[in-house]
Amino acid sequence: MSPAATAREAERVERLRAEAAAAGLDAYVATSDESIAYLTGFRPLQLERLFAVVVRADGGGAVVVPRLDEGQIADAPETLARVAYDASSDGIPELLETLAGLSSVGVEEDHIVFARSSALQAHGIRLEPAGELLASLRARKDAAEVEQVRRACAVVEEALRATFAELRPGAVEWEVNASVESRLRERGATDVHPLILFGENAANPHGKPGPRELRPGDVVCADLSACIGGYWGDLTRCATVGPASEWARRAWEVVREAQAAAIAACRPGVPAREVDLAQRRIVEARPELGRCLHGAGHAIGLAVHEPPFLVPRTSTPLAEGMIFTIEPGLYQPESGGIRLEDDVLVAADGPELLSTLPLDLVEIPTT
Amino acid sequence: MSPAATAREAERVERLRAEAAAAGLDAYVATSDESIAYLTGFRPLQLERLFAVVVRADGGGAVVVPRLDEGQIADAPETLARVAYDASSDGIPELLETLAGLSSVGVEEDHIVFARSSALQAHGIRLEPAGELLASLRARKDAAEVEQVRRACAVVEEALRATFAELRPGAVEWEVNASVESRLRERGATDVHPLILFGENAANPHGKPGPRELRPGDVVCADLSACIGGYWGDLTRCATVGPASEWARRAWEVVREAQAAAIAACRPGVPAREVDLAQRRIVEARPELGRCLHGAGHAIGLAVHEPPFLVPRTSTPLAEGMIFTIEPGLYQPESGGIRLEDDVLVAADGPELLSTLPLDLVEIPTT
Repeated sequence: MSPAATAREAERVERLRAEAAAAGLDAYVATSDESIAYLTGFRPLQLERLFAVVVRADGGGAVVVPRLDEGQIADAPETLARVAYDASSDGIPELLETLAGLSSVGVEEDHIVFARSSALQAHGIRLEPAGELLASLRARKDAAEVEQVRRACAVVEEALRATFAELRPGAVEWEVNASVESRLRERGATDVHPLILFGENAANPHGKPGPRELRPGDVVCADLSACIGGYWGDLTRCATVGPASEWARRAWEVVREAQAAAIAACRPGVPAREVDLAQRRIVEARPELGRCLHGAGHAIGLAVHEPPFLVPRTSTPLAEGMIFTIEPGLYQPESGGIRLEDDVLVAADGPELLSTLPLDLVEIPTT
Repeated sequence: MSPAATAREAERVERLRAEAAAAGLDAYVATSDESIAYLTGFRPLQLERLFAVVVRADGGGAVVVPRLDEGQIADAPETLARVAYDASSDGIPELLETLAGLSSVGVEEDHIVFARSSALQAHGIRLEPAGELLASLRARKDAAEVEQVRRACAVVEEALRATFAELRPGAVEWEVNASVESRLRERGATDVHPLILFGENAANPHGKPGPRELRPGDVVCADLSACIGGYWGDLTRCATVGPASEWARRAWEVVREAQAAAIAACRPGVPAREVDLAQRRIVEARPELGRCLHGAGHAIGLAVHEPPFLVPRTSTPLAEGMIFTIEPGLYQPESGGIRLEDDVLVAADGPELLSTLPLDLVEIPTT
């Protein structure tokens, strides 16, 4: 890890310490992969094992990891003690030791599991849901992070272009997904979520690629995300095999209009739900073209989905430096789905697209 | 989904209902991907959204999913109501409705997060940690599940053979991992964890593949796992580039001996920690060859790591139908790591290997 990167993580730890103290917490315990990566530069492979970064308001703190991951935290900020626990422990006693003398501890309530929260509470620790505190630090990206997302988007764009250029009738859905995943990994992606769905399968935004073959008349909804150098890019484009049907063309026009409206709403100070509303009022006005099955999008960065979420229940105001996917869609059971997704930076003077791929509804040759 | 598979899931729901009632629970709420798959045949993509299977002791129950996943639960057992919540909800009100009138609810304490456990508790639900109850149902595989793990092992074996056959000095660690992942996905894997590490990188059992090139004299520790048809296989074999060093050969011999001892201990009734001890007493007796950094292994099935874990703190007795990875290793910072891993069925009359690949320390040509 470069000294610049290490300094960046050390600064983040101090920012978290100050915020935790200001919130009246004695300490903050970060447990999610991405928060640990944000604070230490090390992204764990958690499985069933406990990993935690402890930042105490009174100074100090620790990185708690299983013994077998001890070798990976050498570059963590020096203000954090290295605590490794053996296979004979579940890590809780070691974590408790780093919290000795403290009572009020902020946690990532959407990550720490009931078994661990109960164990800490049983030892007199008062847990405060404080995911938002760290999430709001992570949400405002610095210039280097913006460039990392832009780079990830560029790799995803190239994969989308190549996929549409190569697709022909007879292609098998799951093979196409495997092949684009391989292409993305060859380009350096450490994690990939390919979701390319054909025809009626695309009516399900979380459908699973299967053995279905591509046929003339199908829509293709291609949602690709990839993690490059620790940061994600996430884009969706659509195509039809042969000329677009009346439904596909009209749905695409409506979704494109909805996406433009939601992107335009991405300005500092706008509540997250307003961005959702900007697309929702457009897609929901056209029930004959399909259903609106999800919100406008989500923040993206170290995690492919991270808060704030652009959904009706989120009132968080957008802030400079946040990056969101904007991805309205229309889904019609028999016909499929049309979704358009870009990654958008909330800049001081308004939205900035981090991707450059045209929104075109691509026409795939039938032969 | 075939009617046979649906019937299997319906039976599992009834077994869970009976076990929950016997444990004095009013209901069981399963939230992990694999438990939801076990009970419904549907494996969710959770991200930040709530998914749950509710099984009430008094009959009935529900599958709770976000609206956009509604299309995927059509084949769930018919005794479970379908409950889909909109983007305006976090799913908790809908989950609470399925628990109306109940007070004591078992949960998967290693999966449900603090935010959700607190929300349920705030509505008067008493949560009981009961992961073990469902895990012990999942742990005893039926004959069809055993064959699914065997099939996954066969695919992993083929990938290991091919990888060792193709490896030559100059190969780049992360490219090799990407290529084997692609190979496994082309063979139908829906999820893959390749972990092929070169030389000193292999001294870290959870190291990350990087830009390092393979060099003469290196050890290669190749740990591959793949999920095929919903079930995982997970194997590790080692190689050296050119003739094995004295260290590599001796470490391999000790690890092979430790693996044989741990496999021999895989009999019904033996406490999990005894299986660990069988390998530990052999590897820990040779500190000059490296360190013992982890337990003997873990159960495997719908999840790549699932309980029981073969570690010093687990007293669970092994039972017929359980499947474990057995994977002792020795790790030496300068030299690398040697690990041997197979998947072993605990049959009535003793251990049965589900993999057939020889344990040989493969010699990779230097040119």
